[in-house]
Amino acid sequence: MAGKASMHGLHFRPHFKTHQSIEIGRWFQQVGVKAVTVSSVTMAEYFANNGWTDITIAFPVYSNDIGRISSLSRRIRLNIIASSAANLAGVVEHLNHEVGVFIELDTGHGRSGVGPDNTREIAIMAMMLQQNGSISFKGFITHSGHTYAAKSSQEVAFIHKKTLSTLIQLKSFWRETYPGIIASIGDTPSCSIIDDFWGVDEIRPGNFVFYDMQQAVIGSCTPDDIALALICPVVDVNFSRGEVLIHGGAVHLSKDSFKLIDGTTAYGLVCPFDGTKWGTPLEGLYLRSVSQEHGVIASTNPDAIAKLAVGERVAILPAHSCLAVDTMGMMFLPDGTEISTMRQRVNIT
Amino acid sequence: MAGKASMHGLHFRPHFKTHQSIEIGRWFQQVGVKAVTVSSVTMAEYFANNGWTDITIAFPVYSNDIGRISSLSRRIRLNIIASSAANLAGVVEHLNHEVGVFIELDTGHGRSGVGPDNTREIAIMAMMLQQNGSISFKGFITHSGHTYAAKSSQEVAFIHKKTLSTLIQLKSFWRETYPGIIASIGDTPSCSIIDDFWGVDEIRPGNFVFYDMQQAVIGSCTPDDIALALICPVVDVNFSRGEVLIHGGAVHLSKDSFKLIDGTTAYGLVCPFDGTKWGTPLEGLYLRSVSQEHGVIASTNPDAIAKLAVGERVAILPAHSCLAVDTMGMMFLPDGTEISTMRQRVNIT
Repeated sequence: MAGKASMHGLHFRPHFKTHQSIEIGRWFQQVGVKAVTVSSVTMAEYFANNGWTDITIAFPVYSNDIGRISSLSRRIRLNIIASSAANLAGVVEHLNHEVGVFIELDTGHGRSGVGPDNTREIAIMAMMLQQNGSISFKGFITHSGHTYAAKSSQEVAFIHKKTLSTLIQLKSFWRETYPGIIASIGDTPSCSIIDDFWGVDEIRPGNFVFYDMQQAVIGSCTPDDIALALICPVVDVNFSRGEVLIHGGAVHLSKDSFKLIDGTTAYGLVCPFDGTKWGTPLEGLYLRSVSQEHGVIASTNPDAIAKLAVGERVAILPAHSCLAVDTMGMMFLPDGTEISTMRQRVNIT
Repeated sequence: MAGKASMHGLHFRPHFKTHQSIEIGRWFQQVGVKAVTVSSVTMAEYFANNGWTDITIAFPVYSNDIGRISSLSRRIRLNIIASSAANLAGVVEHLNHEVGVFIELDTGHGRSGVGPDNTREIAIMAMMLQQNGSISFKGFITHSGHTYAAKSSQEVAFIHKKTLSTLIQLKSFWRETYPGIIASIGDTPSCSIIDDFWGVDEIRPGNFVFYDMQQAVIGSCTPDDIALALICPVVDVNFSRGEVLIHGGAVHLSKDSFKLIDGTTAYGLVCPFDGTKWGTPLEGLYLRSVSQEHGVIASTNPDAIAKLAVGERVAILPAHSCLAVDTMGMMFLPDGTEISTMRQRVNIT
């Protein structure tokens, strides 16, 4: 991804919410990454405390966080985002140290941000930003999260083209008044699949660090690209139902899901595991349900069940790696080294 | 629930997986509870280390856990469950200290356990248990988890009646050979709604300690009975879409959902919050989507949105309290006292 950004002359500011980890952050430093994106003030503090000096908090600023944002802005280059004039009104006068502010655009995801056609609100926000000398108006930021619901690369390309044209239009209009502004996009599907970024200055993908089955379904990756799995013991095999019970449930994987080709809801794919590495997914098997600790593997191919035996372990490729990492609160490398995350789990005994 | 159990002459062995907390365990001790249910060996160790001496681990035993189970069985009265002959085969000869074993029945949930009609497998399992003098065969245990998919109290009653008749039949057949055996059921909907437990000896509900919106939809409780909420800041209000953005997403609530009366998927209901207590749910509002940190409240009643302002806080009644507690890894009483859970979250700074 770093290579792709550099090839297209884009500033690469990866989102670190997927791994939430200092150790994995170092892998990014090794390919020259100096600026990152995070999803909360707490996450910004964690990475700032561990050597990162250029951070964008890609969650709309709100008044409760002003004290922590001000103190962060004294220590590092900090950018925040504002999703509306109302949202900005509560904070703009309280920012008293150099901070960059992006106006967040809703380019169709429908989660947060100003509508790109809402010229009046964008103008009001830009003026509000001008009134505080500590603030520099950085430009427009968007997360085309509706690509996560896309069912093909073509659909991702269609959404991405629309986002590009919106950003180009807005940037050319506002650049006359604010020459330094940039346009920043973030979704992993567009950044993975597309090769046209004309008009964009910065990309902020995060999920690609591991990928997952939701991304494989969209076409951002293949199952072989997925770099995160949950290792689960096989607890029981039910030959009459063609199902396998594993110890691996919603408290390990989260309850996010994806659709198999035939429309069936699945919570993961099932791979053989040799104690160190996992292989390619076993054909015809999928995780059909998760409750708190239980996972049930179903099969569209009765022979596939015969490959799993009580006492063995399997690797589950998760539906959504960001939530699986957050839910487990820890990861391990193939050699057994633990990789800690910010929201760590501690089993109280 | 303790009163109901006592009224029906049932042994009350509440499931502690919902709260996972020593402090909340003490509330149970105050109403005379001495025996509990847990969903993992780790959870059994946590409660055993904190004064609980009679524990059933309601997750099928598997070989990896034998060492820890043996060591637990030396310290407390321990029961485990076996979900098949294959599952039992890997462990039965390794148990070398007094332990109770239940045969798990699948009474229609389709997750784990032997089919009640599978007399041959049940006989084999009972014989296997007899071969090890340390093991006492405790009886039959079932979790009619298919009541969680019920859409009415009537449907719960129907499932429960079928479970009762299965248990009565099995118990009367096997009691001739094994006079001490009992029948244990566990689902919160049946234990909440039903008043006929004839043939059952023990109940193990857990979720009722807090309840949640999934239980309210089934009819196990009303929204006013729900004793757990996630307090979330209002970040932005989008009047044109009639939506409100909150800081409260899948890493706080989990991604479990329930259906509104019209079939819409919802992740929570929205209540006013005065800083200490929450009120009854605001009509026409519901949490329509959650991503990692964002939650979006939608409205079927445009006036309802006007009650929420940027900077205020709202209380979200969760779809599934067990997962919300596990995801947050901490809880607070109205007076601000923190209540820790077993799988605690520690923010690394």
